[in-house]
Amino acid sequence: MRLEDDRVVLLDQRRLPDEEVELACRSAVEVAEAIRSLAVRGAPAIGIAAAYGYALAALRGEDLDAALAVLVGARPTAANLAWALREVQAAADPAARARELHAEEVERCRRMSVHAARLIEPGSRALTHCNTGGLATGGQGTALGALTEAWSQGLVRHVFVDETRPLLQGARLTAWELEAAGVPHTVVADAAAGSLLASGEVECVLVGADRIAANGDTANKIGTYPLAVLATRHEVPFYVVAPTSTVDLETATGEGIPIEERDPREVSPRFPAWNPAFDVTPAELITAIVTELGVHRAPYAESLLGAVAA
Amino acid sequence: MRLEDDRVVLLDQRRLPDEEVELACRSAVEVAEAIRSLAVRGAPAIGIAAAYGYALAALRGEDLDAALAVLVGARPTAANLAWALREVQAAADPAARARELHAEEVERCRRMSVHAARLIEPGSRALTHCNTGGLATGGQGTALGALTEAWSQGLVRHVFVDETRPLLQGARLTAWELEAAGVPHTVVADAAAGSLLASGEVECVLVGADRIAANGDTANKIGTYPLAVLATRHEVPFYVVAPTSTVDLETATGEGIPIEERDPREVSPRFPAWNPAFDVTPAELITAIVTELGVHRAPYAESLLGAVAA
Repeated sequence: MRLEDDRVVLLDQRRLPDEEVELACRSAVEVAEAIRSLAVRGAPAIGIAAAYGYALAALRGEDLDAALAVLVGARPTAANLAWALREVQAAADPAARARELHAEEVERCRRMSVHAARLIEPGSRALTHCNTGGLATGGQGTALGALTEAWSQGLVRHVFVDETRPLLQGARLTAWELEAAGVPHTVVADAAAGSLLASGEVECVLVGADRIAANGDTANKIGTYPLAVLATRHEVPFYVVAPTSTVDLETATGEGIPIEERDPREVSPRFPAWNPAFDVTPAELITAIVTELGVHRAPYAESLLGAVAA
Repeated sequence: MRLEDDRVVLLDQRRLPDEEVELACRSAVEVAEAIRSLAVRGAPAIGIAAAYGYALAALRGEDLDAALAVLVGARPTAANLAWALREVQAAADPAARARELHAEEVERCRRMSVHAARLIEPGSRALTHCNTGGLATGGQGTALGALTEAWSQGLVRHVFVDETRPLLQGARLTAWELEAAGVPHTVVADAAAGSLLASGEVECVLVGADRIAANGDTANKIGTYPLAVLATRHEVPFYVVAPTSTVDLETATGEGIPIEERDPREVSPRFPAWNPAFDVTPAELITAIVTELGVHRAPYAESLLGAVAA
């Protein structure tokens, strides 16, 4: 993902794994549409894309209030979107600040991957959901960055990947990234995760986050909450790995997180359907939250506030 | 589904809901292939299909030992398959016995639907998984039969349908049957069931079964176990509705139930995948098991034995 003089260029994730095609967005509206339509997705990545979109609007002399409005409204759940836009809006040079944010996100990914890898027992088989790798973050990833880091250290030996319906971010994107990294992996239907956990074939679950409330309640891709319930039942540690740009101290609990509902036709082209993109995992089900600052444990209201507000 | 002089005719469920096409099977091998490839599916329905396949083999003068072997080996998990084949094998007139089994299954569906409907509070919103309607049973259905019965009595007002990956029996077959019956319904991704249950928008969960062990442990379509765990957490009653032909008193617990693993390409055409077709829900998570004989409660080892062996 990069900002050029007259465009923001990003890899079109909708066409993966079949084709690697770049998409050029020539205005803030086009960047917002790329975010809305999931050409770029993943909370940290959409923060960076939105920052680049705002910077592009500034370079092009667009109406910046209008650019801000269309970008911030592209998707409602990820905390990173509004956060990144606040950062570039306050900057004297939005383009420079957007590129800096991108570099910072890369560094956050690197640090949180190292912190999270330390939690993983040698020889572990891990389970993950959705896509939290390079595609989702601009860096090496959050949960998936931690897993590839842990694999390179010999800690993780296999990664099970929830396919992540309806848009198959796991089956399309995570499997593609794991294949590229040479990490042994197996895709499963989301509904098969229960059997995996019940059979004792998974030693840890790692997921990313779209927004973490002040008390640790975490919004993430639909299906994360059932996974946390199952992990708890089978006493498998459940880790959330996300940058501090995903932590929203102004939202007290998960109840305050807006949950995006997407087009029902993504689920069923023919019959009535309900398509929430995210769910909320209560903090009580989360073993630890890992950010670039370290490993945070319950009570999260204290540990997150202490780390993030510091 | 019917037996004619030289063929078994069934609705090809693989082509629903787009096309309603009959498939004619002209030998036991062709019936077994129809079962294996899911042209006909659902534990009671494959029992009937197998019985018709054996009867067809008898009418055609096929080697009956070979016919039995190919039919019983078509799929491993459903108890009804071996049960129905034992019945026709022991009969003087296999064709007459197969048609009688079919009629008995229709009557079992009717009775269990009435028993199960009595458990449902007026105005309930129900959640179901996979397909357990007419397509799956030859009759009005098991769990779905109960739901349509309860809807006609004004007890159920809405049915949420898990899409049921990887083969979408919920999104393709259950939604199609509910539409035909005029029952208000909404399809959800399997991973969204957790949000539905957490939000308090579901008053009961009803599922079918492929095999019920003597202690009440129940094998059913992959994803049933996570649903039972979530229903228990949110104190929503979880009912299994199935005929006594699905109860296998010779299998003591769920650990003894063989779980079919299907072609990984059903999950992912490109990346390594694992594709178990069923999971096992421990009896402790099941509020009640409903058969044509009535409502059975824990301890199931006693209630099932008392009812089924009687």
